[in-house]
Amino acid sequence: MLRIGIVGYGYWGPNLVRNFSTTQGAEVKIVADLDPARLARVKQLNPAIEVTADIQDLLANPDLDAVAIATPVSTHYELALQALRANKHVFVEKPIAENSEQTEHLIEEAEKRDLVLHVDHTFIYTGAVRKMRDLVRDGEIGDIYYYDSTRVNLGLFQSDVNVMWDLAVHDLSIMDYVLPSKVTAVSASGVSHLKGQPANVAYLTVFFEDNCIAHLHVNWLSPVKLRKTLLGGSRKMIVYDDLEPSEKIKIYDKGITLHEDKEKAYQQRVAYRSGDMLAPELDIREALQVEAEQFLRCINENIASPSNGQAGLRVLRILEAATVSLSERGRPVKLGWNGRGMKVA
Amino acid sequence: MLRIGIVGYGYWGPNLVRNFSTTQGAEVKIVADLDPARLARVKQLNPAIEVTADIQDLLANPDLDAVAIATPVSTHYELALQALRANKHVFVEKPIAENSEQTEHLIEEAEKRDLVLHVDHTFIYTGAVRKMRDLVRDGEIGDIYYYDSTRVNLGLFQSDVNVMWDLAVHDLSIMDYVLPSKVTAVSASGVSHLKGQPANVAYLTVFFEDNCIAHLHVNWLSPVKLRKTLLGGSRKMIVYDDLEPSEKIKIYDKGITLHEDKEKAYQQRVAYRSGDMLAPELDIREALQVEAEQFLRCINENIASPSNGQAGLRVLRILEAATVSLSERGRPVKLGWNGRGMKVA
Amino acid sequence: MLRIGIVGYGYWGPNLVRNFSTTQGAEVKIVADLDPARLARVKQLNPAIEVTADIQDLLANPDLDAVAIATPVSTHYELALQALRANKHVFVEKPIAENSEQTEHLIEEAEKRDLVLHVDHTFIYTGAVRKMRDLVRDGEIGDIYYYDSTRVNLGLFQSDVNVMWDLAVHDLSIMDYVLPSKVTAVSASGVSHLKGQPANVAYLTVFFEDNCIAHLHVNWLSPVKLRKTLLGGSRKMIVYDDLEPSEKIKIYDKGITLHEDKEKAYQQRVAYRSGDMLAPELDIREALQVEAEQFLRCINENIASPSNGQAGLRVLRILEAATVSLSERGRPVKLGWNGRGMKVA
Amino acid sequence: MLRIGIVGYGYWGPNLVRNFSTTQGAEVKIVADLDPARLARVKQLNPAIEVTADIQDLLANPDLDAVAIATPVSTHYELALQALRANKHVFVEKPIAENSEQTEHLIEEAEKRDLVLHVDHTFIYTGAVRKMRDLVRDGEIGDIYYYDSTRVNLGLFQSDVNVMWDLAVHDLSIMDYVLPSKVTAVSASGVSHLKGQPANVAYLTVFFEDNCIAHLHVNWLSPVKLRKTLLGGSRKMIVYDDLEPSEKIKIYDKGITLHEDKEKAYQQRVAYRSGDMLAPELDIREALQVEAEQFLRCINENIASPSNGQAGLRVLRILEAATVSLSERGRPVKLGWNGRGMKVA
Repeated sequence: MLRIGIVGYGYWGPNLVRNFSTTQGAEVKIVADLDPARLARVKQLNPAIEVTADIQDLLANPDLDAVAIATPVSTHYELALQALRANKHVFVEKPIAENSEQTEHLIEEAEKRDLVLHVDHTFIYTGAVRKMRDLVRDGEIGDIYYYDSTRVNLGLFQSDVNVMWDLAVHDLSIMDYVLPSKVTAVSASGVSHLKGQPANVAYLTVFFEDNCIAHLHVNWLSPVKLRKTLLGGSRKMIVYDDLEPSEKIKIYDKGITLHEDKEKAYQQRVAYRSGDMLAPELDIREALQVEAEQFLRCINENIASPSNGQAGLRVLRILEAATVSLSERGRPVKLGWNGRGMKVA
Repeated sequence: MLRIGIVGYGYWGPNLVRNFSTTQGAEVKIVADLDPARLARVKQLNPAIEVTADIQDLLANPDLDAVAIATPVSTHYELALQALRANKHVFVEKPIAENSEQTEHLIEEAEKRDLVLHVDHTFIYTGAVRKMRDLVRDGEIGDIYYYDSTRVNLGLFQSDVNVMWDLAVHDLSIMDYVLPSKVTAVSASGVSHLKGQPANVAYLTVFFEDNCIAHLHVNWLSPVKLRKTLLGGSRKMIVYDDLEPSEKIKIYDKGITLHEDKEKAYQQRVAYRSGDMLAPELDIREALQVEAEQFLRCINENIASPSNGQAGLRVLRILEAATVSLSERGRPVKLGWNGRGMKVA
Repeated sequence: MLRIGIVGYGYWGPNLVRNFSTTQGAEVKIVADLDPARLARVKQLNPAIEVTADIQDLLANPDLDAVAIATPVSTHYELALQALRANKHVFVEKPIAENSEQTEHLIEEAEKRDLVLHVDHTFIYTGAVRKMRDLVRDGEIGDIYYYDSTRVNLGLFQSDVNVMWDLAVHDLSIMDYVLPSKVTAVSASGVSHLKGQPANVAYLTVFFEDNCIAHLHVNWLSPVKLRKTLLGGSRKMIVYDDLEPSEKIKIYDKGITLHEDKEKAYQQRVAYRSGDMLAPELDIREALQVEAEQFLRCINENIASPSNGQAGLRVLRILEAATVSLSERGRPVKLGWNGRGMKVA
Repeated sequence: MLRIGIVGYGYWGPNLVRNFSTTQGAEVKIVADLDPARLARVKQLNPAIEVTADIQDLLANPDLDAVAIATPVSTHYELALQALRANKHVFVEKPIAENSEQTEHLIEEAEKRDLVLHVDHTFIYTGAVRKMRDLVRDGEIGDIYYYDSTRVNLGLFQSDVNVMWDLAVHDLSIMDYVLPSKVTAVSASGVSHLKGQPANVAYLTVFFEDNCIAHLHVNWLSPVKLRKTLLGGSRKMIVYDDLEPSEKIKIYDKGITLHEDKEKAYQQRVAYRSGDMLAPELDIREALQVEAEQFLRCINENIASPSNGQAGLRVLRILEAATVSLSERGRPVKLGWNGRGMKVA
């Protein structure tokens, strides 16, 4: 039985408590939060769970095997580091830390101690994204040509990070999970429409080592809400619309072929192929439940999490590079690789 | 009565003949094409129109006041130049020429002779785009924050120009007509998925002298056809979906306001405003008919066409700069202005 | 301060407790349910509310001004009757009772004692339906030509009533609220696809004293969920789609006019009119909150509820007549009026 | 080579000429119309086709094997009868005649002379409807539970027939082709909103000898155009939306199962099944081309047309019965069968 402590019981913490409580093999022992009203709420809903206003107390608790951290981003690094140093496995909200340097330290600390460091990239545990990943992995899509996402709505404007850190982070974690190629560079552009505030509209192009291209359109100031992703491949193409009540994933048996016959004119050599469209049934379990089970499996079977510290680092590096590019109107910023992840060239 | 000659009777020429024939004050006198079968078709449908396989003959015809050119792009410059030199007003398909140098020559020639030089930016004569322009011009939208267009479908791959010259050219002509600010720079990215061929997926960001931003997503390899534009402003926002059978334009009374009260936290100072959505009735006349009438009015009243040579030049300059940027993974390329149009800095 | 007791804390009771608790001028004093676990849940969420397993105890409680009943339909009549006889105002779930005879008794009892008898026709308190009613009442729609509703989905099959009692009841309560004319007859058809079970597909036509017609399509066995209503009038027409996240109500300025000119052929005399479409901003408050406030206003100001016993009776009479018609393959069943409501002819 | 004469060159005639001209094995020899301008148009587009203003001349022409009739309905019977008596195969627009008596005479005449009598039920030759038919025939859908169609738009009001004869006739011909069961009765309701004119809104329920039910909603006065059909079966269900640019047919692997376990409550015994949705690629050939080939095959191979005189008669009988029922507010009207088709009981 894995004993878990949860730090932070604000917006997301209750979901962590609820899902870890219903995960077989896990037990939520204690919840820490600075706000007594929140702790009272924990007791009301879960009388058996201990509560504390002293986070250090929780981190030092020898009865805990793992700690889940759902506090503001600025505290992630300190809390995760302490938890790791107290030999706890760590489940931390995204983004994993404020910057890639902090993230590298956390990764080192976890590796040194052979602990699981898991970032809560919730989207990759949805039925829709797992289906996309399976289709790509199994070769159904063929070579990946492009990944194009539109994630726009009205609000909620933030003052500490630009819209990419709020919205594009979801797509970057999905891309990290689904796409097989390595990122080599990014180009981003965007503007702010509120004086002195971070960009509220942004466009982010991601280049890969092959001729795959990804593009993310994020906007806090759209009159309509859109969550639409196109994934094009040499064999099939996917439209993933997260706002569809069902049929979120549609697989199109469409594409083109270029005949080699040099005698013919170019237009005649391009053949357009069309076939069935399939919307496969998707696993509709709550993503966080699937993720909690994955976290346990990683600990128990000593396997890597699909959203481990390295994945969190890769996402952060792209956001950092994109923020630089955005301030220079799209100047491409290269991303290099070392043995353990990417590093700005 | 304005007497018009039409050069080229391929895909678009028949539409020109039909629309100029039904425009009050205009008369199609002669059609030129190298293909006798096409000329026979002209006679069959319009027995009163003369036909000729000798384009020079048409251009030199002293009975003609104007010439409409619907031939391949590579011939536009030569034909338009000859027509202008023969003192004919010119109506020419888009893009106006192969490059901005040619375009500047045509503009000079037309100005010198006080002739109308009109580019067939058909979209700006649709009811939907004219409605958008009216709303922007009349202040209904307020300050323009962004223009975002998605124009994707499967096919038709071209071998001589990249996808921006085929698809983004429509959006650029619409932006030139609707948006009040001056373009200052572009950043573009894209890739080709057919070896040795021009890019078939491209993303184009356009920067303006104020904090308006425009972005175009064009793709020849999408499993679904999309024609959707978002236009955000400080007062209202528009969604323009050209695939809607009716209600192509939707005006949302939505937006945000930032209160100045520095005491309050940022999140509390941002207010989100929501109101009615209106889909105004649109003029459903054929765009080319509206455009033909506009061309006549320009000649008869000696006024500038909204899609005159300068407009064609501005669109071309952006395409040229974007093509440079695309080859350098988004490096921003500046566009400067001289007295008569833009010029690469 | 109106003191309310709630009977039944199953699926809907918690919503009643929550909404009456937050209604100014109302106070939930006590909740009764036979299940101790449910009562424990009440205490957990609302420590100040008393609980009891003895419903008689609640009904006899002299501290209560009103009783809300959220129990199975078969118990509505007995519980409501007792509450009225104990001089409590009554708020009861739909349908108000098992048949029209019971309903007439309840109405008489409430009238005799000058008590409010309110049926929970929740839909008529939504922003969308209130907007439709306002538009009809204010003459915006003109004469009502037809009301057409499709309300289909997969499940939930019931064994005690046919699909009309489960789904069409919503439309009938909306029609009762929105449409000004009197119902004169119904014709219904339908079938069961599970042997020995009530009809799971049904079509119900409602005739009015003028040439308005209404039609309801209800189905528990549809592959897709649809909630779409068309309301046609002589001046404007409405499309109400309850599944739209926003823009649930669309008002079309469309219609026809028949010119009187007898000289002309019929086809030339019919003119089709087209104009703007408007999706007005709707009140997005929770319907049950609006309804709770309405219930209080009816008590405090001694005014009739839009969903009073008479309204409940009118809906029931139509369902009863439709059930007869359905068993006879659409034979029309007339509905007559007496001074206080309809009565089967 | 089958030699065909076409009678009537108004709205539909040109389509017949075009499609029969491109059908291998067929040749359009002559076109008859009373209007000289139309005949001139025939010559212009098809110089090799003879034209005549004398319909008798065409019908008597010994060089013709078949005659296609695209004239007003009131003339169908006379013209078709003459053609059959002149030993021509007949292809006639829908509805085949003004009433079922006329239709029976035509059927008799054709049978006596062993001629093909084909009614132009165009919809059943579309890729979408043929796909539905194949799925039903091959058992993919299982037992058919219901067929539900909505076919509404604004216009075109007609003065000689009610809306069922204009719009429901399409659905009836589709049902006749797709559904395996025999019709036993109909119930229809509707109203007219233009004084003295036929009903412009109508609802038509069709009962079958098993517990399949069909329902058609037709309306000339809808603010929006809808063309949506639901087909429910015991194994799968279809949504057919003719307005979708592609994916007109969607097959849902959904349904219910009733477990026999009498111990359990009814609600527990009903199981809802959900699976993939498939939108199969459809044949996109022009329906009339497919139909012309079918007509030839019927003649050459002496096989029955899917839309032969009997099919036309079945559709007519339902329309006649529905018109009676509509005038009596839904009173069910039975339809009986004799050896060769249905007959009002």
